[in-house]
Amino acid sequence: MSETENLSLAAIEALSFDALRRAGASEPQARPLARDTAVTEAMGVASHGLAYIPIYAEHLRCGKVLGEAVPSVETPRPAAVVVSAGNGFAHAAIDAGLPLAMDAARSQGIAVLSIRESYNCGVLGVHALRIAQSGLVGLCFTNAPASIAPSGGATPVVGTNPIALGAPDGAGGASLLIDQSASAIAKSEVMKHAREGKPIPEGWALDAEGKPTTDPNVGLKGSMAPAGGYKGVGLGLIVETFAAALSGAVLGKDASPFSGPVGGPPATGQCFVLIDPDATSGGEFAGRMAALTQAITAQPGARLPGVNRQSAMERAEQNGVDVSAAILERVRAI
Amino acid sequence: MSETENLSLAAIEALSFDALRRAGASEPQARPLARDTAVTEAMGVASHGLAYIPIYAEHLRCGKVLGEAVPSVETPRPAAVVVSAGNGFAHAAIDAGLPLAMDAARSQGIAVLSIRESYNCGVLGVHALRIAQSGLVGLCFTNAPASIAPSGGATPVVGTNPIALGAPDGAGGASLLIDQSASAIAKSEVMKHAREGKPIPEGWALDAEGKPTTDPNVGLKGSMAPAGGYKGVGLGLIVETFAAALSGAVLGKDASPFSGPVGGPPATGQCFVLIDPDATSGGEFAGRMAALTQAITAQPGARLPGVNRQSAMERAEQNGVDVSAAILERVRAI
Repeated sequence: MSETENLSLAAIEALSFDALRRAGASEPQARPLARDTAVTEAMGVASHGLAYIPIYAEHLRCGKVLGEAVPSVETPRPAAVVVSAGNGFAHAAIDAGLPLAMDAARSQGIAVLSIRESYNCGVLGVHALRIAQSGLVGLCFTNAPASIAPSGGATPVVGTNPIALGAPDGAGGASLLIDQSASAIAKSEVMKHAREGKPIPEGWALDAEGKPTTDPNVGLKGSMAPAGGYKGVGLGLIVETFAAALSGAVLGKDASPFSGPVGGPPATGQCFVLIDPDATSGGEFAGRMAALTQAITAQPGARLPGVNRQSAMERAEQNGVDVSAAILERVRAI
Repeated sequence: MSETENLSLAAIEALSFDALRRAGASEPQARPLARDTAVTEAMGVASHGLAYIPIYAEHLRCGKVLGEAVPSVETPRPAAVVVSAGNGFAHAAIDAGLPLAMDAARSQGIAVLSIRESYNCGVLGVHALRIAQSGLVGLCFTNAPASIAPSGGATPVVGTNPIALGAPDGAGGASLLIDQSASAIAKSEVMKHAREGKPIPEGWALDAEGKPTTDPNVGLKGSMAPAGGYKGVGLGLIVETFAAALSGAVLGKDASPFSGPVGGPPATGQCFVLIDPDATSGGEFAGRMAALTQAITAQPGARLPGVNRQSAMERAEQNGVDVSAAILERVRAI
């Protein structure tokens, strides 16, 4: 095992905040991202926590993210909140619009928060969890540079485009937390195999002609396999419709990469739908969700989505997180 | 090939209407279902068109559907429309609430229509298409008796729970129409193989211990395989959260079967989210959708979801539909 250092969540946030500030982010740009980096580490998703801070810093320096951006917020209709992130971080734009969208969902029953001129929003489930913690159901969409081809085709048209659901438990937490991409496997896994010179299992990626491949480098030049075949493509298209078309954001097929310094701001988008269960369920929501999740947890070996992340968060609150020393060194060097 | 008879869409609707009336449905219960039966035949989904009328008639006669039910509609918040179908047909309940939800989506930017004490709503994409034809984006959810087990478990907790998206094209039609279930394959396909005594391919169904099976009868006593493994389960849970928990409808795990005469009304639910793209996209929606769908249709052999159904509808408007004579005989015998 590689060397680790134990950090409290407050220390992770402070370290992230300072690094983002040094790389050129304003305080309002750095704070929400630093906070959510700590939440991401608490959830146990190390790949998208502190390990991403050096990438964010690179993107601040090359102009892929504008560190002084100020999100602009409009409410064109009572239940619609529209934010332009101004090519700053997605997290600052979400912070600018989400409280308004939460208020609108409570008063109107449902609300939509759409965000354009945005960027990679990190772990989508972090935002869905926050909506659930506020007592609302959150259905979240975010798009990404295209990497999945349509069924029968070979050229990518949508990204790994995740969808996330956060359902409130009536006690300030989540009864259900789902966060899943449209691809069979995360693109970062294929990139890791490429770096390590290892073949990938069949079913992860396709070559430039749309044929299965076990060579990660060939797969990265081709496309990611959709989860469940054409149904994964369908889900990616649903997410693209919400995150890009409904938000007026840049389509994944036209977006600059989320990695590396070239291409300028990706200007991709997010769309969050928030619903107040008290408006629609006749008081039945919490009971229905408890019965549904208990039908899963009552089965030996059955997996309830999101449970691992939520129990990791409880442990992290108490005991902090063991972070890779190599990653800490890179973050501190910024 | 079996014998067929060519019917106009108006004739299919009239035949369906008369059969439903004779089986005990009131005029307001029969009309919307007859209309959508014709739309379903026009789309080329024969399995859920006239072939379902004898099942509907059986369910009217055994009390699984109340033919005299009157849906009750409430608008508890400006953007939330809540309907109880009163254990009548889902279609009458949708007709009762959808116009209000469409108006609310236009004035508020987004609206939710939730329906409880409902029933099988037929092809979900029929409703998503109708929303798209009104110029709104529709994201539709409906639940069903449980047939999919959680990952690592063996007892079904959610149904094949479809999700459907209808996106408007700005000209009274749909630029994108997606309608897909959470299972790898439709349950009706497994039932068909069982009837015909044929083995099913591996990956369609699981036995009562959650292990793969090629015996359709064993699969029907076990569970349907989710599409894309745990991601299909996740999608089924998202749909269940919307269609059952948010609507206060009966969970799939507690619902009576959609087939056969026993168990009384299933009392399952629907939830439709409607969004006005003019509220959120800054006028970019139609252009983004056109660019997205063209990126698919420009690839030789690539499949754009929903295109086959929409071109079938155009042909059916002109030329009617060739309907199985055996099915017609059964409908006319009601």
